[in-house]
Amino acid sequence: MTATESDAALAAALRDAAALIETELDVLLPLPEGEERPLVEAMRYAVLGGGKRMRGFLVIETARLFSVNITCAVRVAAAVEMLHAYSLVHDDLPAMDDDDLRRGKPSCHKAFDEATAILAGDALQTRAFEVLAEPDTHSDPEVRCELVLALAAASGARGMVGGQMIDIVSEGRQLEPPVITRLQALKTGRLIQFSAEAGAILGRAPGPQRHHIAGYGRDLGAAFQIADDILDEEGSDASLGKTAGKDAAQGKATMVAVMGIERARTHAAHLASQAAAYLDSFGAKADLLRALAAFTVNRRN
Amino acid sequence: MTATESDAALAAALRDAAALIETELDVLLPLPEGEERPLVEAMRYAVLGGGKRMRGFLVIETARLFSVNITCAVRVAAAVEMLHAYSLVHDDLPAMDDDDLRRGKPSCHKAFDEATAILAGDALQTRAFEVLAEPDTHSDPEVRCELVLALAAASGARGMVGGQMIDIVSEGRQLEPPVITRLQALKTGRLIQFSAEAGAILGRAPGPQRHHIAGYGRDLGAAFQIADDILDEEGSDASLGKTAGKDAAQGKATMVAVMGIERARTHAAHLASQAAAYLDSFGAKADLLRALAAFTVNRRN
Repeated sequence: MTATESDAALAAALRDAAALIETELDVLLPLPEGEERPLVEAMRYAVLGGGKRMRGFLVIETARLFSVNITCAVRVAAAVEMLHAYSLVHDDLPAMDDDDLRRGKPSCHKAFDEATAILAGDALQTRAFEVLAEPDTHSDPEVRCELVLALAAASGARGMVGGQMIDIVSEGRQLEPPVITRLQALKTGRLIQFSAEAGAILGRAPGPQRHHIAGYGRDLGAAFQIADDILDEEGSDASLGKTAGKDAAQGKATMVAVMGIERARTHAAHLASQAAAYLDSFGAKADLLRALAAFTVNRRN
Repeated sequence: MTATESDAALAAALRDAAALIETELDVLLPLPEGEERPLVEAMRYAVLGGGKRMRGFLVIETARLFSVNITCAVRVAAAVEMLHAYSLVHDDLPAMDDDDLRRGKPSCHKAFDEATAILAGDALQTRAFEVLAEPDTHSDPEVRCELVLALAAASGARGMVGGQMIDIVSEGRQLEPPVITRLQALKTGRLIQFSAEAGAILGRAPGPQRHHIAGYGRDLGAAFQIADDILDEEGSDASLGKTAGKDAAQGKATMVAVMGIERARTHAAHLASQAAAYLDSFGAKADLLRALAAFTVNRRN
């Protein structure tokens, strides 16, 4: 395949995966009924109808490498997207990043109110873990427990939430590149890595293969974050669907701030090809995952 | 046993359980290391050194009915207390109940800041589910998944968080008693009921026994909430360790507001004896659980 063909194949596959995940999310989220209706509306608002579903796509594509039942993979993909949406809802709160715009729409606390947004984030986290533990996600309860444990490790105090904390305490401070790397590995990298590993967990992949998938996820996550920081620096609100230029305005420590855009771009490209190299043993079955690594550092939004 | 002897036995057992749970929490919570240190400090601040540990005690005592290994029971008790602490941290936030005092100390966002409190609550929820799924909690992964599912159902959008939402949307509105009953069953009842059922889940209790324990937990939870509302109305900040009289000041719908204190007290006593009646088949082994039901409606803080 040429680069253009592979881009087209990836775009189609991303679109198909997003449609599957959207349908599954709609089924898995509660219905807006009863006095608690605004909570459920806010949960659905935060999760449905937006996002590239890159994390969910990773679950589905890595699961395919191990011939996992697509129904199981899509459930886990939906759980990851719920977890990701919860983190965005809380991250956008006035006490956190104070962002009014998300995925081109008012952020959750703007569309509803702060209390509802806090509770919606809380309930989305709960639902994500619940979905992983449900019998429909995998026939083997050992696998379901392993998914819960891996997601908790990726998203808790030593994962995503820990990364958000470091991000906050670092505002306005000059960080060394290794600290920035750790911050970003925790804040966005761990959940992306989990998304990749989830397919290997579902497929009970042997140790070495799981190790390769984890390496792919780790380097892809690092490349993704740097590319995201470059877009934040260069992009507009309209192309990003969120407020552009905020990192610099808030004095956030990013690789772009430390290295400058051109060196950061080279570093991201290096990470993306390193990610793809982890897939060598999977042959053509991993072509879409390779295309995703390339796309991650070349995308424009 | 006389009522005084049974009160003394309960007080001693609550103290012993609280000490076991405190030690376990200290082991299960992360250590304050790295740049994310304030997050971990806030998690530990919110959970350690406070509270009657009534929910954890319920896990330990119901587990005892089914001869569950105490190590397993104490882990689940600690997980429930983490989940409970997360709900208090988020409930106290300015956008929610806006409470400066909790367990006689500044609430988490006062001792730290709002962003740290939001993240600490998030990470405590994550850790609670993680602990339930860990192999040390039970040798059978099916039981661990069942614990995750039961806690998620008790605490998510159709449980505790749903109840908090109803509580917020009802402020200043006149609610009918059945709606108040549902609000409180969700907001505090479901987690108390989970705490009781957890022992039965750990002990793989047969259906009818689990049903009895669930009934005990449900009625105990309802009695507890009414007693809590009476204390809020009558108590002082010092005796409660939190701001007294807030419910009335915020126009919260409680049974006390609807029924008046005396009728609410009678109703709570009725619920407590109904709870105790569910324990008939467990004989003397359930004496402490019976004493807890009586204490719940007679306590002064």
